[in-house]
Amino acid sequence: MSEKRKIVIIGGVAGGASAATRARRLSETASIVIVEKGPYVSFANCGLPYHLGGVIQERDALLVQTPQSLKERFNIDVLVNAEAIAIDRNARTVLVRNLITGADDTLTYDALILAPGAEAVRPPLPGLDLPNVFTLQTMSDMDGIIAHVRGTRVKRAAVIGGGFIGVEAAENLAGRGIAVSLIEADRQVLPPLDPEMASPLHAHLRENGIDLRLGAKASACAADGDGIAITLDGGGIVSADLVILAIGVRPRTDLAKRAGLEIGETGAIKVDDAMRTSDSAIYAVGDAVEVTNPVTGLPAFIPLAGPANRQGRIAADQIFGRDSRYRGTIGTSICKVFSLAAGATGASEKLLRRIGRPYQKTYLHPGHHAGYYPDAESISLKVIFDTASGAILGAQAVGAKGVDKRIDVIAASIAAGRTVFDLEHLELAYAPPYGSAKDPVNMVGFIAGNILRGEHRIIHAEEIGALDPARDMLLDVRTVEENAEGRMPNSINIPINELRGRIGELPRDRRIVVYCAVGQRGYVAQRMLTQMGFDAVNLSGGYATWIMAQAAR
Amino acid sequence: MSEKRKIVIIGGVAGGASAATRARRLSETASIVIVEKGPYVSFANCGLPYHLGGVIQERDALLVQTPQSLKERFNIDVLVNAEAIAIDRNARTVLVRNLITGADDTLTYDALILAPGAEAVRPPLPGLDLPNVFTLQTMSDMDGIIAHVRGTRVKRAAVIGGGFIGVEAAENLAGRGIAVSLIEADRQVLPPLDPEMASPLHAHLRENGIDLRLGAKASACAADGDGIAITLDGGGIVSADLVILAIGVRPRTDLAKRAGLEIGETGAIKVDDAMRTSDSAIYAVGDAVEVTNPVTGLPAFIPLAGPANRQGRIAADQIFGRDSRYRGTIGTSICKVFSLAAGATGASEKLLRRIGRPYQKTYLHPGHHAGYYPDAESISLKVIFDTASGAILGAQAVGAKGVDKRIDVIAASIAAGRTVFDLEHLELAYAPPYGSAKDPVNMVGFIAGNILRGEHRIIHAEEIGALDPARDMLLDVRTVEENAEGRMPNSINIPINELRGRIGELPRDRRIVVYCAVGQRGYVAQRMLTQMGFDAVNLSGGYATWIMAQAAR
Repeated sequence: MSEKRKIVIIGGVAGGASAATRARRLSETASIVIVEKGPYVSFANCGLPYHLGGVIQERDALLVQTPQSLKERFNIDVLVNAEAIAIDRNARTVLVRNLITGADDTLTYDALILAPGAEAVRPPLPGLDLPNVFTLQTMSDMDGIIAHVRGTRVKRAAVIGGGFIGVEAAENLAGRGIAVSLIEADRQVLPPLDPEMASPLHAHLRENGIDLRLGAKASACAADGDGIAITLDGGGIVSADLVILAIGVRPRTDLAKRAGLEIGETGAIKVDDAMRTSDSAIYAVGDAVEVTNPVTGLPAFIPLAGPANRQGRIAADQIFGRDSRYRGTIGTSICKVFSLAAGATGASEKLLRRIGRPYQKTYLHPGHHAGYYPDAESISLKVIFDTASGAILGAQAVGAKGVDKRIDVIAASIAAGRTVFDLEHLELAYAPPYGSAKDPVNMVGFIAGNILRGEHRIIHAEEIGALDPARDMLLDVRTVEENAEGRMPNSINIPINELRGRIGELPRDRRIVVYCAVGQRGYVAQRMLTQMGFDAVNLSGGYATWIMAQAAR
Repeated sequence: MSEKRKIVIIGGVAGGASAATRARRLSETASIVIVEKGPYVSFANCGLPYHLGGVIQERDALLVQTPQSLKERFNIDVLVNAEAIAIDRNARTVLVRNLITGADDTLTYDALILAPGAEAVRPPLPGLDLPNVFTLQTMSDMDGIIAHVRGTRVKRAAVIGGGFIGVEAAENLAGRGIAVSLIEADRQVLPPLDPEMASPLHAHLRENGIDLRLGAKASACAADGDGIAITLDGGGIVSADLVILAIGVRPRTDLAKRAGLEIGETGAIKVDDAMRTSDSAIYAVGDAVEVTNPVTGLPAFIPLAGPANRQGRIAADQIFGRDSRYRGTIGTSICKVFSLAAGATGASEKLLRRIGRPYQKTYLHPGHHAGYYPDAESISLKVIFDTASGAILGAQAVGAKGVDKRIDVIAASIAAGRTVFDLEHLELAYAPPYGSAKDPVNMVGFIAGNILRGEHRIIHAEEIGALDPARDMLLDVRTVEENAEGRMPNSINIPINELRGRIGELPRDRRIVVYCAVGQRGYVAQRMLTQMGFDAVNLSGGYATWIMAQAAR
């Protein structure tokens, strides 16, 4: 490799900026040029909703780097408001248009990195071109929304789309005192979660004043005075002074397609694990590329900031002869939803079902730290694992505190190819303010291990509806007081502490389906009953999980 | 294995109680008896300091299980105030004395589990038998301290010993408005940390009003009116109305020794990875046993609640024919120190030095979440790794937030035998309130990987004192403003953004030792200089680490 190489990078946010600065650290003499379509490079797009809500007070705090700072510190040339129009792969040149002056220029490259990102999906709905309909992807989008809010006394806003950005936008608009409708076509928010795990978020959004419309598909927007009337499929109209469209993103692939680069089956740019496209002089990174999900082994489109940054680094390494390889994206993500956090890593149950992969799962609801220490908050945790090997396939967690930690420990374990049996043994930091001697992650290991060893026989909440009273008896082993506050239909109540003494009340010709509050006492009861010769199973995650599953129906 | 087995368990707290309940879940018919010397079983000893401080308000919240609850739910018989006096290994019996009545009884066992725990070390100092000298290990200890505090208007307390319990006791006594002296013979608190990592804690303890006496060895206690005068070696007297002795614990091995069971080189009971002692019918678990530290491969005495619980479970599994194995203890721990958390996992630098194992290390001071999101708190993080393989050997972290998460992710990675190169690739949950696109753990991977690949050439703070101005030039690449607020002696200042333009000011016949605030800009400068032909190294962790190391000298 020559030390005077010319590196051109299309796109200057997460992946592009990471590639550029890494390239400079690897070569002081290379020419490094970033071509950025927008007016800003390296801004914190994950922070946009929070400046909208005033949580991040200083707008400029979002500008992680500027063209000037990249020049001063890294001797990187940045062309902003500059669009790459065409790539001549034979000549190794990029035609770049100055979007202000209209002037074209040709840049020569030895290596080209495509980091164009993804763009907000705009469905072919009438009315989306109205001036008070926005997306929230760039600094300019955010500036436009804030100017609109300030200029027109926005009282009601509608967010279309309940993914990460939609939920964050809804929370932050509400934080400004705006009445917010959140309109989601699916039956749940946050697609990486399974429906029952999203259901506590629905209740929480509503408790926080969000007018949540699930299973509601916007079919048209129309001007209505100064505001907008959003017509929903199947009837209903939502009125708003401001609409944020956040139904998802799609990879920006136009330039790559025009250059004849291979596109993957997900519609994103195809790259190998060196982040190289079908042209060996052209790399692609970030939200525009297709990745492999190592959990499923399948191609996936998972636009996330962390992977984008690491991919940029890998492309720069490769260009300068370091054989870094990308290991794929398991999709670790987290979203703040008012006082709750919702995190996920690996594959969801719905994804595994869709691809027909066998799995088992478990639910638990442990405290985020020792129960006897003040302010313990319960985490609802779902872990999915391979039925044969116990390999961890995915995890989802919702709770007020400690969600990020458990998701990260499980994500690190998935990356290491670990099983639920390994989770039993993890030695995690324990003092009462931080965790429990048996951390929730250890508990996952204990419970899942017991399931796979056949010691813990379980049934899941979605199977409860199909129980047949002639063959199954539902047994609540909680206290009488707990039972009085709410119970499953057709269940009898024998508190666990009385069970040995009242064993004669149980039928031997029916299966006993045990449940308690979260699954722990139910497990003790199931072990007792199984050893006494009963056919007994325990409801995974107990009444708490059943409530979540009911709400998701 | 018979289903009517008789299991006797000596000690009913963490390890013993876990063994008992697991045994019951595995066998409904076994006879399970716990023999507990004290009046309580299964109490939360990690919570004792926090009830002392009133943080945990309800005393009984610490009683996780009672003899009654263990009987009702698990059909476990608990003998409290009962001491196991002798084991007859041939007859498989234990002689048990009722400490209230003095009556002896003989229990027969098929399997015996020793879980006697550890006891507070009481050095042979004069005056430790005074009525206002306490240890803090049991409910009774705690009750005694609280009664004393209430009864005698304690204004000044002295805690002797700066380990976990000593520091927690000091914080909690201070929380009751008591003036606290914390007396520690070593030059640092919290032995699992290396001295420079403990130094911010020293400052923080003092900021919170603790009279911290380091390198101060108590040589005698003497009554002084209603109080106590503690004489320190080398002069000085500390006066207190109450003394808590917390200089450490040692394994309770008397019973095991009398029974002729093998004791390990650390002085704790020797067990194999099935938690079996030298007698195959006798298991031992918890704070009384010697473990292997898989990081060093050496025997160790690491009394911690998490391992005790898991060991108890394993002993029960083994008794009932399940081949569970203990994987050793890496020593993951954490301690709240007022507003800071201090965590550690794996081996410390001082331990590796002592055993002569080669290692490299890196320091960093990243924010606990994205810097542009409000209230980002910096974490001081030290990671130690194998120079050849990059295997992670240990980590230590101190900070206000997010310490537990990073220690847990690294602990999980150590358990999986991962290297620092693997940390580069970890995909952790990122949204601005929870982390950064490049999480601190990723940053460890990037930095340590760069060091091992020879790209990042570093020097450590403890080497700075030995620099020779004739051969080394100290270069501060921070801004002029940062430099004006404090700098290392004999350093010149060229801000990183001016460095390319002022390169002529640097000598080519001396080594350039670069530093910045935390090591990041210094790394960029070192890369630049190295590629320009200079002999350049960067101070790992920058000025922040140097300050910590200076304070620890």
